[in-house]
Amino acid sequence: MKRVMLIVSYDGTNYHGWQIQPSAATIEGMLNKAICSLTGEAIQVIGASRTDAGVHALGNVAVFDTESRIPAEKFSYALNQRLPEDIVIQKSLQVFDFFHPRHCDCKKTYEYTIVNRAFPLPEYRNTAYFYYGTLDLKKMQKAAEAFLGEHDFAAFCSAGAQVQSTVRTIYSLEVVKDDIEEKIRIRVQGNGFLYNMVRILVGTLLEVGKGAILPEDVEYIIASCDRAQAGPTAPAKGLRLLQIEYPFALDNCSK
Amino acid sequence: MKRVMLIVSYDGTNYHGWQIQPSAATIEGMLNKAICSLTGEAIQVIGASRTDAGVHALGNVAVFDTESRIPAEKFSYALNQRLPEDIVIQKSLQVFDFFHPRHCDCKKTYEYTIVNRAFPLPEYRNTAYFYYGTLDLKKMQKAAEAFLGEHDFAAFCSAGAQVQSTVRTIYSLEVVKDDIEEKIRIRVQGNGFLYNMVRILVGTLLEVGKGAILPEDVEYIIASCDRAQAGPTAPAKGLRLLQIEYPFALDNCSK
Repeated sequence: MKRVMLIVSYDGTNYHGWQIQPSAATIEGMLNKAICSLTGEAIQVIGASRTDAGVHALGNVAVFDTESRIPAEKFSYALNQRLPEDIVIQKSLQVFDFFHPRHCDCKKTYEYTIVNRAFPLPEYRNTAYFYYGTLDLKKMQKAAEAFLGEHDFAAFCSAGAQVQSTVRTIYSLEVVKDDIEEKIRIRVQGNGFLYNMVRILVGTLLEVGKGAILPEDVEYIIASCDRAQAGPTAPAKGLRLLQIEYPFALDNCSK
Repeated sequence: MKRVMLIVSYDGTNYHGWQIQPSAATIEGMLNKAICSLTGEAIQVIGASRTDAGVHALGNVAVFDTESRIPAEKFSYALNQRLPEDIVIQKSLQVFDFFHPRHCDCKKTYEYTIVNRAFPLPEYRNTAYFYYGTLDLKKMQKAAEAFLGEHDFAAFCSAGAQVQSTVRTIYSLEVVKDDIEEKIRIRVQGNGFLYNMVRILVGTLLEVGKGAILPEDVEYIIASCDRAQAGPTAPAKGLRLLQIEYPFALDNCSK
């Protein structure tokens, strides 16, 4: 038996999110099917981030155990032959047997894209949120500073989430706009995110950009631990999981 | 009568290029249909750049004459209601009556995207060229310098093009790679481009990146004026017309 880790990229447009569902196409469902078809084993992957419907990924992580004699690093090639073109394995490798993608410390990086101009850009119609109103970028950048560091982010968590602690640490949060496309990119890195946390954070920064929330008030919104104080949950399609980094050598295992 | 200019963005994936064809969907065909449906006039637009099948645009330009009483700046809103979501008018404005988008001096900016990593990125499967081999970015950047300035670019023009002169000026040519996505972006600005010129230029830079052409040889390839000396034509889907700038006020007209 070996434990194989996959780095998975996908365009989430045509899927009902990561998590397997009986009668809808999901990323997890497609991966299980491709792995079963390849190995003949009834395998269910464990994902690092169970992204919502419409959310995209450059580098989500999944692991599974297999008795297959296919070398771990060859799984990427073999699975990509069996996956549709909107799901691509970027890398496969053997990891140590007790590695669990959700129960290990890690750094996650998400990116949210807002097309902020008079009309939408066709190329980004499935991968960005379009907002035509004026957004004050400087205010959004100022407000972003309040999120840095360790905080209780209970105000930035959708109801129904079952977590032991709502304390998380944000290492960096950048808000930048490019001139030609007029696209605002919000990139955030932290040691983990609560359910819908990035989308609520973005929804709050959007309210700041519109002038509905003052940048100085964001620290009080965080301190309130009250979901009702934060902005709305920004639409899923603008969100992309960029990468997950683990602080140890994953391939520290007997091959 | 007034002359209206449109700034047009599109995802070219589902179209057989700009130029109208009797039995295939094209950007020009879709625009004519939408304008006729709006004004009731049998209008045919004139495009600035007749992009090939699969090529995208952020800001191509089209003009047409109309007797319609709809204010020029309202055409964008009215036409976007009649266009599919992969074609979006970014702006409409009245221009002076003798303005012709192809017979005026202008600066055009194109961008070419290469996903250069082991496996393709699903999000860019229609808007970038995927190349998994090693590309030497420094060599490509060095080679890019040879294109700057005024040259006879006959070596970078596909056969069958009817032009009076093959002399063009390139103002800037940048080759940059980002770390996380491993996407190479080649952005080129010039006073005009010959048929397939940007794609042959990119194809040549790709050969340089692969080591098949030396950076020092590019100036001789240009000087040869021989299409056979340059690299192959890079695939259409990686190309995007970013913007066209005219050096005079376009709305210098009696409204």
